Amino acid sequence: MDALKSKIKELGNVLPGNILKVDAFLNHQVDPTLMMEMGQDFADRYANNQISKVLTLEVSGIAMALTTANALGVPMIFAKKIQSLTLDDEVFVAQVYSYTKETTYDIRVDKRFLNPEDNVLIIDDFLANGEALKGLIELVEQSGANVGGIGIAIEKTFQEGGKKVREMGYPIYSQARIKSLTDGKVEFDEDLDA
Amino acid sequence: MDALKSKIKELGNVLPGNILKVDAFLNHQVDPTLMMEMGQDFADRYANNQISKVLTLEVSGIAMALTTANALGVPMIFAKKIQSLTLDDEVFVAQVYSYTKETTYDIRVDKRFLNPEDNVLIIDDFLANGEALKGLIELVEQSGANVGGIGIAIEKTFQEGGKKVREMGYPIYSQARIKSLTDGKVEFDEDLDA
Repeated sequence: MDALKSKIKELGNVLPGNILKVDAFLNHQVDPTLMMEMGQDFADRYANNQISKVLTLEVSGIAMALTTANALGVPMIFAKKIQSLTLDDEVFVAQVYSYTKETTYDIRVDKRFLNPEDNVLIIDDFLANGEALKGLIELVEQSGANVGGIGIAIEKTFQEGGKKVREMGYPIYSQARIKSLTDGKVEFDEDLDA
Repeated sequence: MDALKSKIKELGNVLPGNILKVDAFLNHQVDPTLMMEMGQDFADRYANNQISKVLTLEVSGIAMALTTANALGVPMIFAKKIQSLTLDDEVFVAQVYSYTKETTYDIRVDKRFLNPEDNVLIIDDFLANGEALKGLIELVEQSGANVGGIGIAIEKTFQEGGKKVREMGYPIYSQARIKSLTDGKVEFDEDLDA
């Protein structure tokens, strides 16, 4: 998706450890025009999939999930990150391992908001190891709903998450696919048609 | 704002302790159409104020701050909640006391994103005791920017936050003003022209 790739080239910042900092337009300061374009792009991609809900994970996925849901005319749900392991019958819960923080946390969605009739489009900002995405898929499966599609803003194709989730049989559309962040330089993966 | 008040009447849930649960359309499941309308309403209200940035606090303010910023054609920034008290020269920091959690946490904005030239519209979902709002005002003042306006989705006018912040000289526009949640019933404050 050209608008996102241009913005990454212009304002993205590569830090040691294969980190791409996008806080100037995506996850701290947010460019609303770009978010509207990204939402429309995700919606166009999944326009024929009868999506009934858009699901994301707080915090950084919310803006683009909202614009996607608006373009599709369906509700958006953001799963909540909870550190404590309290039991609660009224929520679907999945565990997510964070490689950066070396810790496991819970993600939760109230059972009222996902039903077996739902066809869910999962949206998230980054896909690297795929742990958060697998947690979101698990929440959908617990509810009996169907994963109708997955939309990712920035996929690091040099990490394993995308490959693993595609091998599980889920379609993923990534708007910007990055194959290398070596030497502080962003190299896009133009070949992979995800 | 009628669309928000209708939604509160239809889907809001009053819990003991003066809590209004709006997780069916605002802060867990989110109604994108309502968010677009709320953003347009905030933007209309402050259309002549030369707003250059919209500032909110993660998590629940993000959706409506994004649509407001989109309608105004300016960037949106969400302040981050951080529990640890690490020093960092590159951020503006304010402390916020949470009455519900009985704890103090930091909110932060990277110094790159607020400048003395900025005229900032602060957006948040709830105004009750006003602690979060005062923290956001403090971040703007630290940067040397001006608070060009404040927009709140739901103000509990039976709590002190709105009064205190108005007495500090800041204009507040609240889309739904609630004067009582007694006996599980939402009573709107129609008189107060904030």
